[in-house]
Amino acid sequence: MSFSTDTQTSNLNTSAAAMAAASLLCSHISTISKKLSDTTFAVDASYLIFSAYIVFTMQLGFALLSTGSVRAKNAINTLFTSIIDAASGAISYYLFGFALAFGTPSNGFIGGNQNFFGLSSFPEDYRYDYGFFVFQWTFAITVSGITNGSMAERTKFVGYLLYSPYLIGLVYPTISHWFWSNDGWASPTRSDKKLLLGPGTIDFSGSGVVHLVGGIAGFWGSYIVGPRIGRFNGSGQCLAIHGHNASLVVLGTFLLWFGWYGFNAGSFLTILKSYDQSRPYYGQWSAIGRTAVTTTLAGSSATLTTLFCKRLLVGHWNIFHVCSGLLSGLVAITSGCAIVEPWAAILCGFVASLTLIGLEELAKKHRYDDPLLAAQLHGGCGGWGLIFTGLFANEEYVNEVYPLEGGRPYGLFLGGGSKLLVAQIIGILAIVGWVTLTMGPLFYWLHKTNLLRISEEEEVEGIDKTCHGGVAYKLEMD
Amino acid sequence: MSFSTDTQTSNLNTSAAAMAAASLLCSHISTISKKLSDTTFAVDASYLIFSAYIVFTMQLGFALLSTGSVRAKNAINTLFTSIIDAASGAISYYLFGFALAFGTPSNGFIGGNQNFFGLSSFPEDYRYDYGFFVFQWTFAITVSGITNGSMAERTKFVGYLLYSPYLIGLVYPTISHWFWSNDGWASPTRSDKKLLLGPGTIDFSGSGVVHLVGGIAGFWGSYIVGPRIGRFNGSGQCLAIHGHNASLVVLGTFLLWFGWYGFNAGSFLTILKSYDQSRPYYGQWSAIGRTAVTTTLAGSSATLTTLFCKRLLVGHWNIFHVCSGLLSGLVAITSGCAIVEPWAAILCGFVASLTLIGLEELAKKHRYDDPLLAAQLHGGCGGWGLIFTGLFANEEYVNEVYPLEGGRPYGLFLGGGSKLLVAQIIGILAIVGWVTLTMGPLFYWLHKTNLLRISEEEEVEGIDKTCHGGVAYKLEMD
Amino acid sequence: MSFSTDTQTSNLNTSAAAMAAASLLCSHISTISKKLSDTTFAVDASYLIFSAYIVFTMQLGFALLSTGSVRAKNAINTLFTSIIDAASGAISYYLFGFALAFGTPSNGFIGGNQNFFGLSSFPEDYRYDYGFFVFQWTFAITVSGITNGSMAERTKFVGYLLYSPYLIGLVYPTISHWFWSNDGWASPTRSDKKLLLGPGTIDFSGSGVVHLVGGIAGFWGSYIVGPRIGRFNGSGQCLAIHGHNASLVVLGTFLLWFGWYGFNAGSFLTILKSYDQSRPYYGQWSAIGRTAVTTTLAGSSATLTTLFCKRLLVGHWNIFHVCSGLLSGLVAITSGCAIVEPWAAILCGFVASLTLIGLEELAKKHRYDDPLLAAQLHGGCGGWGLIFTGLFANEEYVNEVYPLEGGRPYGLFLGGGSKLLVAQIIGILAIVGWVTLTMGPLFYWLHKTNLLRISEEEEVEGIDKTCHGGVAYKLEMD
Repeated sequence: MSFSTDTQTSNLNTSAAAMAAASLLCSHISTISKKLSDTTFAVDASYLIFSAYIVFTMQLGFALLSTGSVRAKNAINTLFTSIIDAASGAISYYLFGFALAFGTPSNGFIGGNQNFFGLSSFPEDYRYDYGFFVFQWTFAITVSGITNGSMAERTKFVGYLLYSPYLIGLVYPTISHWFWSNDGWASPTRSDKKLLLGPGTIDFSGSGVVHLVGGIAGFWGSYIVGPRIGRFNGSGQCLAIHGHNASLVVLGTFLLWFGWYGFNAGSFLTILKSYDQSRPYYGQWSAIGRTAVTTTLAGSSATLTTLFCKRLLVGHWNIFHVCSGLLSGLVAITSGCAIVEPWAAILCGFVASLTLIGLEELAKKHRYDDPLLAAQLHGGCGGWGLIFTGLFANEEYVNEVYPLEGGRPYGLFLGGGSKLLVAQIIGILAIVGWVTLTMGPLFYWLHKTNLLRISEEEEVEGIDKTCHGGVAYKLEMD
Repeated sequence: MSFSTDTQTSNLNTSAAAMAAASLLCSHISTISKKLSDTTFAVDASYLIFSAYIVFTMQLGFALLSTGSVRAKNAINTLFTSIIDAASGAISYYLFGFALAFGTPSNGFIGGNQNFFGLSSFPEDYRYDYGFFVFQWTFAITVSGITNGSMAERTKFVGYLLYSPYLIGLVYPTISHWFWSNDGWASPTRSDKKLLLGPGTIDFSGSGVVHLVGGIAGFWGSYIVGPRIGRFNGSGQCLAIHGHNASLVVLGTFLLWFGWYGFNAGSFLTILKSYDQSRPYYGQWSAIGRTAVTTTLAGSSATLTTLFCKRLLVGHWNIFHVCSGLLSGLVAITSGCAIVEPWAAILCGFVASLTLIGLEELAKKHRYDDPLLAAQLHGGCGGWGLIFTGLFANEEYVNEVYPLEGGRPYGLFLGGGSKLLVAQIIGILAIVGWVTLTMGPLFYWLHKTNLLRISEEEEVEGIDKTCHGGVAYKLEMD
Repeated sequence: MSFSTDTQTSNLNTSAAAMAAASLLCSHISTISKKLSDTTFAVDASYLIFSAYIVFTMQLGFALLSTGSVRAKNAINTLFTSIIDAASGAISYYLFGFALAFGTPSNGFIGGNQNFFGLSSFPEDYRYDYGFFVFQWTFAITVSGITNGSMAERTKFVGYLLYSPYLIGLVYPTISHWFWSNDGWASPTRSDKKLLLGPGTIDFSGSGVVHLVGGIAGFWGSYIVGPRIGRFNGSGQCLAIHGHNASLVVLGTFLLWFGWYGFNAGSFLTILKSYDQSRPYYGQWSAIGRTAVTTTLAGSSATLTTLFCKRLLVGHWNIFHVCSGLLSGLVAITSGCAIVEPWAAILCGFVASLTLIGLEELAKKHRYDDPLLAAQLHGGCGGWGLIFTGLFANEEYVNEVYPLEGGRPYGLFLGGGSKLLVAQIIGILAIVGWVTLTMGPLFYWLHKTNLLRISEEEEVEGIDKTCHGGVAYKLEMD
C-alpha cells in the first residue's frame, strides 16, 4: 500500500506545497497591494500639494495686478492687504475657517461639530489630510483679495483689518461648506445622495464659491465706502483714474493665469483615478489636462474678444482692458472647467468678455467706482460661469467627474434638461443673499463708526504717506 | 474503492482548489496590473502637466525681459505682444497648429489628415492626451516671443497681429512636425525607422525647432522693418539704446531660467521609465535630473564667460550683457541637454557666449538692429546648439533616450562618426530655408502694404501714447 | 493499474501545472515588483525635482527683495550678485562643493574621497542621483544671497566675486556635511548610529545650515566693511536709509514664501513612504503637507506679530518691517518644520518676530549696519529656530521622520529631556565658530588689500554708475 500512501503523501505534499505557495503569493500580493495603496496616496498628495503651491502664486498675482492698477501714492497700502490676507487668513482659517467649511459630521448649513478646529483630530483620512488644508487655504485668501480690489484707494487700513478675517474665516467657509463639503445642502457630492434638484449646484473650482463671493462682498464694500474723489465730476461724468504701472499689471495678470491652472486643474484633488475600462489611457489625468485646456481657451477667447471690442469702443488697443478681459474668461470657466468641451470654453470666454464690458458701462452709469472692476469681473463673470455650466455641461464628463448611480442631469443646450441650470441659479441667489446679509451690515457698521473711509485729506495725500510711513518708490539716483 | 475515490476526489479538490486559487490570484494580479498601468499614466501625466505650467512662466519671463530692454515709451506695446501671443496662439494652435504638427497618420512634411483639428478625436492614446497639447502650446507661443523681440519698438501692432498667429499656427507647427512627430522626415523617432542618415536630426527640446525658428523669423522681420531711429548715426556708427528697467530684465531672465527646466527636462514627456536592469535606481528620472544639471551648467558657464569677456571688451560689469549671455547658454544646451554629459554642457555654454559676442559685433558692422539680440541669441546659439549635439552626444545616453535596435550614431568628438553632425547641419539648413521662405515674403508684403513699420512721428513719440492710449508708468505721488 | 497511473499522472500533471502556474505567477509578481520599484523612484524623483525648481525661485525672490530694499543707484549691483551666485555657485558646487558635502565614504568633518567631484561616479544610488544635486545646489546659492544682503551698497564687486564661490563651494558644504550627510559628526542620520548626545543636531531644512551660516558670514562681512555713509550721524544716531521700491520688496518676499515650500517640504527628498500600518492613509505625504502647514503658520504669526508690535513702536503700519517679520518666522521654522505641531509653529513665529525686533534695536545701538537685516534675521532667527526644535520637537513626528531603533530624544517642553536641546546648542556654536574662522579672515584680508569697500566717491555716486556702466532705470518717456 506504499503506493496509495505515496499518493496520499504526495497529495498532502502537493496540497501543503500549494498552500505554502498560495500563502507566499498571497503575502506577496498583499505587500504589493499595500505598496500600491501607498503609491496612490503619494501620487495624489504630490499632485495636490504642488497645485496648492501654484494657487498660492495667485496671491502674488493679485498683489501686483491691484498695485499696478492704483495710483503710486497708494501702492504700499494695496501691497499690504495681500500680505495680511495671506497671514491673517492662515491663522483664522486654521483656527476655525477650515472646520466651519469641512468639519464633519455636520449639517447642510455649516461644518464643525468640534472637529478640525485648529486642525484637531487631523488627518482623519486621505481627503482630510494636511495638503487639502493648504489647498483650501490658498482658495480662501483669494476671496479677500478680490474684495480689496473693489475697495482700494480710499478704505481705512483698520477697516480692512477687521473685515478681512471675518470674510476669510466665516463668510467664505460657510459657502464652501454648502457647495463643496459632503454635507452641504447644495453640494453635488452629498454623501446622502439627496441632491438639490437631482444634480446639486456644480461649481467645480469656484466661479461662485470664490469669485462671486469676493465680487459681491466687494460690491457692497465699494458701494458703502463710495467712489474715489475725482472718479465722477459734478455732472456725473466718469473720469479715468489711471493705474501707475502697466508692467506690474501684466506681471500680476500672467501670475494669475499661471496660478489658475493650480486652481482649476488642482480642484480634482487627485489624479490617479481611472474612468474608462475600454480606454485604459483615459482617466482623471486626461480630465485634468482637459481642464487646463478649457481654462486656457476661455481666457484666450475672452482676451481676443476684449481686444477687438475695446478697440472699437475706445479707439486704441488698451492693455488694462485686455488684462481684465483675460481674467473675465478665467473667472467664468472656473465653474465648468472640468466638465465642458474645449469648444464650449471658447464660447464661455466670449460671453464673459461681453458681460464684463456691459457691466462696466452699467457701473459708470450708476456712479459705482470699483478700481479693479472686481464686482463686475469676479461677481458678474462668476455668475455667468455658473449659468454657463448649467447650459454646457457635457453628459459624459459630468458622469465621470461626479459619478452617480443612474446618471445626472447635464447642460440644457446639450439636451440635459433644465434641472442643472435651475440648481445653478439657486446657487447664485444663495451666494448673493448670504454675502449681502453677512457683509452688508458689517460694512455699514464700519461706515457708521467711521472705520471705513479715510479722510479727504488722506485720500488726496495718498494712504502710503499718511498711514504707512512713506511712499513706495524713491527713484532718484542720489 | 473508497480510497481511490478519495484520491480522485482529493485530486479533483486539489485541482479545483488550485484552479480557484490560481484564478483568484490571476484576478488579483490583473487588478494590480491595471492599477499599475493607471499609476503610470497618472505619474507621467502629473510630470508633464506641471512641466507645462513651468514652461508657461517663460511667456511671462519673455514679457518682462523684453519690456525692461526697451525704452519706457514702448513698454505697453512690448507687454502687449506677450499676452496676445499666448491668447491668439492658444486659439490658432487649438484650431489647426497642433493638428499640423502632430496629426497622425501623416506624411513626412506636415501633419493633419482630419485628425486633431480643434482637438477632434482626442485623446487618442497616452501620447496624444490633453496634457501634451498644453505642453506643446507653451512651446509654440515661445517662438513668437523671440521674433517680437527682434522687431520691438518700431513695428505696427496690426502687423504684429497678422504675423504672430501665422508663425505660431503654421510655420512653427510644420517644423515641429519634421523633427518631433513620429512621421517627420528628419525625426529621430520615425515609426518606420527610416531615419535621416541613420540618426535623424536630434533636437531634444528645440534649440532648432523653437529658438532657431524664432531667431530666423526675427532676423527677417528686423531686417525688413529696418533699424530703429537713432540706432546708427550718419557715419554708420552704432549707438547704444538703453532699456528702461534693469529690475525687469533680471526678473524676466530668472523666470526664463526657471521656465527652462520645464522646457528641457519636461521634454522627456514621461518620467516613469526604466533604463537599466543592472542599476534599478537608474532610469528616465535620472536622465531628467541630469538634464536639469546640463541646463544649469551651460547657462552658468555662459554667464561667467560673458561676464569676464564683456568686462574686457567694454570696461565694466554689464548686467544686460550678462543676462543675454546666460540665455545664450540655455538656448544652446536645449538641443542636446538630455544626451550630453555635464562637463560637455560647460563647454557648450562657453562657446555659446562667444558665439553671441561675435554675432553682436557682426550685427553692428552690418547695421542690423535687434533690440533683444533675438536673431543673434536664439538664432545663432540655437544653431550652435544643434551642432554641439552632433559633436558631443554621448553614446550611452543617446541609446537610452532614443532607443533603436542596433544602436545609433552619436557625437563626432566622442567617436560616434560624422553622421549625426551632418544630420544636424541638414536640420539647420532646412529650418533656415523654411522660415526664410514662409516668413520673408510675409514680412515683405506687410512692408510693401505699409502694415509693418510705424511712422517716424510715432516712433519718436512712443507707441504707447500713439497706439495704446497712454504711457506705462505714472510715478508722481499725487 | 491504469488508475493508479492516472493518479500518478494526474498528480504529476497537477504538480507540473501548479509549478508552471506558480512560476508564471512568480514571474508576474517579479515584473510587478520591478515596476513598483521603478514607480517609487519616479514618484520620488518627480517630487524632488519640482521641489528643487520651486526652491530656485527663492534666488529670484532674494534678488528682488534685496534690490527693492537698497537705493536706486545700487540696484544693478544688487541684482547682479543674485545672478552670479547662481552661476558661479553652479560651477563651484559641481566641481567640488557637492563632493565636499556628500562625497562618501568620508569622515565626520568633510566629504570627498575622490567621489562626486565633477559628479564623477554619478548617480551612485537613488539618494545620490542628479535631482539631489540640483536640489542641494539651490540651497547652496541661497547662503550667499543672505550674505550679500548684509554687505549691500558699499562692497566692491571684485570682493564679492572672490568671497561668493568660497562661501558656496567650501564653507557651506562643510557645514552641510556635518548635519546632513550620513557621516557628519552632528548628523541625526549617521549610518553608524553614533549620534551626538543621542539625537544628533536636528536641522531639518536648514535654519542653521543655511540661514545661520549666511547670517553669520553676513555679520562678519558687514562688520568689517563698516556701515554705509549716512547710516549713523555724528552723534551716533541711526538714520533710516529707505529702499527704492516697495513693489519689488513685496514681490521678492512673496516669491521667497513660495520658494520656502520647496525648501521645507522638499527636504523630505521622497514622498512615497508609509509611516503607520494602522492608518494606511497616513505617511510621508501627510508629513509633507504638515510641513507646508507649519511653514505657513510660523510665517503668518510672525507677520501679524510684527505688524502690531511695529505699529506700537513706530506709529504706522510699515510694510518693509512686516516683510522682514514674515521672513523671520519662515527662517525660524525651517529647522523644526517637519517635526513640530502646527500650534507650536505659531509660537515659533511669534518669538521669531520678537527676536528680530530685539536684534534690530541691538544693532542700531552698536552702530552695526545691515541693509537687509540679514545677520539679525537669518542669523538671529536661524539660531532661534534650532533652539525651538530642541524645545518643541514632537515625539511621534521625530520618530517617523528620523526613525531609530529604541526611539529618540525629543523636545524639552514636551517631556523629551534636554539632550536634543543641548545638541541643538552645540550645533549653533559649531556653525558660528566655523563661519567665523573661515569667513572672518577672508573678509579681513580683502579689507586689508583694499578689495572690500568701494571709495567714498563711488558710494555717493552709486555703484551702478561707477562699476556697471549706467543706472537701472530710465523712466522718462522720450
